[in-house]
Amino acid sequence: MSGQSVTLRQRLLAEGLGTALLLAIVVGSGIMAERLSGGNVAVALLANTLATVWGLYVLIEIFGPLSGAHFNPAVSLAMTARGELAPSLALPYIAAQLLGALLGAWLANAMFELPLLQYSTKLRGGTGQYLAEGVATAGLLLVILRAPAGRASSLVASYIGAAYWFTSSTSFANPAAVFGRMFSDSFAGIAPLSAAGFVIAQLLGAAAGLGLHQLLGRSK
Amino acid sequence: MSGQSVTLRQRLLAEGLGTALLLAIVVGSGIMAERLSGGNVAVALLANTLATVWGLYVLIEIFGPLSGAHFNPAVSLAMTARGELAPSLALPYIAAQLLGALLGAWLANAMFELPLLQYSTKLRGGTGQYLAEGVATAGLLLVILRAPAGRASSLVASYIGAAYWFTSSTSFANPAAVFGRMFSDSFAGIAPLSAAGFVIAQLLGAAAGLGLHQLLGRSK
Amino acid sequence: MSGQSVTLRQRLLAEGLGTALLLAIVVGSGIMAERLSGGNVAVALLANTLATVWGLYVLIEIFGPLSGAHFNPAVSLAMTARGELAPSLALPYIAAQLLGALLGAWLANAMFELPLLQYSTKLRGGTGQYLAEGVATAGLLLVILRAPAGRASSLVASYIGAAYWFTSSTSFANPAAVFGRMFSDSFAGIAPLSAAGFVIAQLLGAAAGLGLHQLLGRSK
Amino acid sequence: MSGQSVTLRQRLLAEGLGTALLLAIVVGSGIMAERLSGGNVAVALLANTLATVWGLYVLIEIFGPLSGAHFNPAVSLAMTARGELAPSLALPYIAAQLLGALLGAWLANAMFELPLLQYSTKLRGGTGQYLAEGVATAGLLLVILRAPAGRASSLVASYIGAAYWFTSSTSFANPAAVFGRMFSDSFAGIAPLSAAGFVIAQLLGAAAGLGLHQLLGRSK
Repeated sequence: MSGQSVTLRQRLLAEGLGTALLLAIVVGSGIMAERLSGGNVAVALLANTLATVWGLYVLIEIFGPLSGAHFNPAVSLAMTARGELAPSLALPYIAAQLLGALLGAWLANAMFELPLLQYSTKLRGGTGQYLAEGVATAGLLLVILRAPAGRASSLVASYIGAAYWFTSSTSFANPAAVFGRMFSDSFAGIAPLSAAGFVIAQLLGAAAGLGLHQLLGRSK
Repeated sequence: MSGQSVTLRQRLLAEGLGTALLLAIVVGSGIMAERLSGGNVAVALLANTLATVWGLYVLIEIFGPLSGAHFNPAVSLAMTARGELAPSLALPYIAAQLLGALLGAWLANAMFELPLLQYSTKLRGGTGQYLAEGVATAGLLLVILRAPAGRASSLVASYIGAAYWFTSSTSFANPAAVFGRMFSDSFAGIAPLSAAGFVIAQLLGAAAGLGLHQLLGRSK
Repeated sequence: MSGQSVTLRQRLLAEGLGTALLLAIVVGSGIMAERLSGGNVAVALLANTLATVWGLYVLIEIFGPLSGAHFNPAVSLAMTARGELAPSLALPYIAAQLLGALLGAWLANAMFELPLLQYSTKLRGGTGQYLAEGVATAGLLLVILRAPAGRASSLVASYIGAAYWFTSSTSFANPAAVFGRMFSDSFAGIAPLSAAGFVIAQLLGAAAGLGLHQLLGRSK
Repeated sequence: MSGQSVTLRQRLLAEGLGTALLLAIVVGSGIMAERLSGGNVAVALLANTLATVWGLYVLIEIFGPLSGAHFNPAVSLAMTARGELAPSLALPYIAAQLLGALLGAWLANAMFELPLLQYSTKLRGGTGQYLAEGVATAGLLLVILRAPAGRASSLVASYIGAAYWFTSSTSFANPAAVFGRMFSDSFAGIAPLSAAGFVIAQLLGAAAGLGLHQLLGRSK
């Protein structure tokens, strides 16, 4: 996706800034939705979903030409496994994503005048949610790997919109999102204790997505 | 829609996996919406609708090049009648769709930690809803048969989004969806006793859609 | 928009069927939204809006190549005034639209098992709403006349989605919609007594839209 | 974006009319949403957001070929700084936008039969909201400057949809929007006393957006 003449510095800046904005969108809209919805969780998740769908579409369009717009360590690892990301770039990409995710959550906290440094107390987990994260991430990989040219942005955004609702975990599907959401004690947060389970499920799901993609084969 | 070099195994895998994901989306988002909406059925159906619209758009884009992305026995039968699907493929397509629908409902049940094997107790039917299913399926066929190249995914998804609301039955419009939803005792379910009426109405509607398409004729 | 070889019969069938489906969508989703929303009018109008936006997008894509997809006497009159619709076609177009609107409202009534023949008792009017209908229709004409090739469907649908909310009348902007909605005593209805005021405001708005379009001039 | 042969009069008319319609959409849908939502602020903001997203998409498509569809003094100043708008056009553009914003708010007031001349009493401000306006406007500039050809309309509209929710200020991101909203004592208004803080934050944000755009560099 990204041209050969894009420098490493540009790529990492794009991954970091893009992931920061993604987390600011996910966490910020979660805080706003929780504040305005008066306890109506379905309405809050609807608003959170729409903001995420619109935001993802924009971020992938804007940063895709620079870095491929992964914003997601599971995606960067899968791309490395497929030879589409140079192995030497995998760790820098992931570091930029995690740093961006942290800064994005902090930006949301700052905009809503909440304590910058805070941790989520929202425990998430259980067999159902681990299965959900695996399914969500497998599906995400399928969508990314099979999207027709020029439609990755709208397809990934739409997929995540559906996955917020059809999975029991509201589909984090992204270890960097898990990391960033740890730093928000809100509707969108996840307690640090719950993080490892989600990340493991996501990595297994990404591997399953790669396998399913192979199994489905080429269409031409 | 699908290239000649796509193998039968690929096609059936695409139809089965696509229909499974479609049902997981419809049933899963129905369960989530019911849980979060606190009895506000309009909000629940809004969430269910948005998840279905986004999901359908993605599934048709991703699986269309492999199998045509029918996910629907009424569509496969109509395509067979029009000579666009080889008659020898009709039954395998439908079998893959029904099996996928069952597995998709079970996947939703598993993600939400509900008993895997359950049956809906939600009776649906009556003249109005049968008419609605007929109208919904006729319209679906019109949309599929008349969609301009490259717009089938967004048109079918948008159509179903509208049809969830303008028909009194919330527009199943798909015998495989009826089959899968039998296995979810939730907002999105349909009691097995009610299934036959819906399916008959859908098949009559599909035939009416084919007829209307002929009547409207070509535009060039 | 429509090719020269489309017959008159095809055009009128397209206008009639398209307008019928448009009214079935507007009225049907209005009934469904009213039933499910438990008195929350904002949620009901949101659902009604989304169904209309998705439906309009689909109907314009599907029927546009046959008839131009006016579905609206104000549009057909404006197109006649601009020489884009043969004067001899104006009355047949409008007749097909009005007949379609009536049948569409009846179809909605039938799907929801309501008395087929009913009249709205919802009085609408007043200076503000007449101004709103004028503004809504002027804007609609601007959008139709200035839409870039291939984007009329999404632009008109999006415009109407915005206009449902930014005008005090919820933007009928279509004499055929006024006519059809008279036959539904629901959320989406309009009392026959209120119809003339709306239609006059719409026709004045259409004329204003034509004038604004001239005033803005060409961009190339 | 705009062809060389578009006259100054056309450009200013497009900026003025476009900004007027933008404010009529933002303020009008805010009034409608407040009236219908029965105090459910999240539902009101959802409706206000959807109307704005659909409306912006349409306005940028329709007026873009004439004037570039800035509708926003911060954008016009940034374009002047980049040499994409002639310096002699900056003030006329901004004057047309401010006049349009005022007339748009008055149009909304008139459609809802509210006193034409009114002032908002809604105080907005504080470090969090100033930061939010800065972030929102920086992001808007990034989106405008980096949007692929033909996607500016859907990207800007989607971005604003996300920003209504992820920023604590609901993302005005536009000095002309601040100006127009001063004249509506509603859900969407802003007290004149609060205007200067918002505008300063927006201009700083626009400058930051220009800087970030340089830092990210070209992708080819």
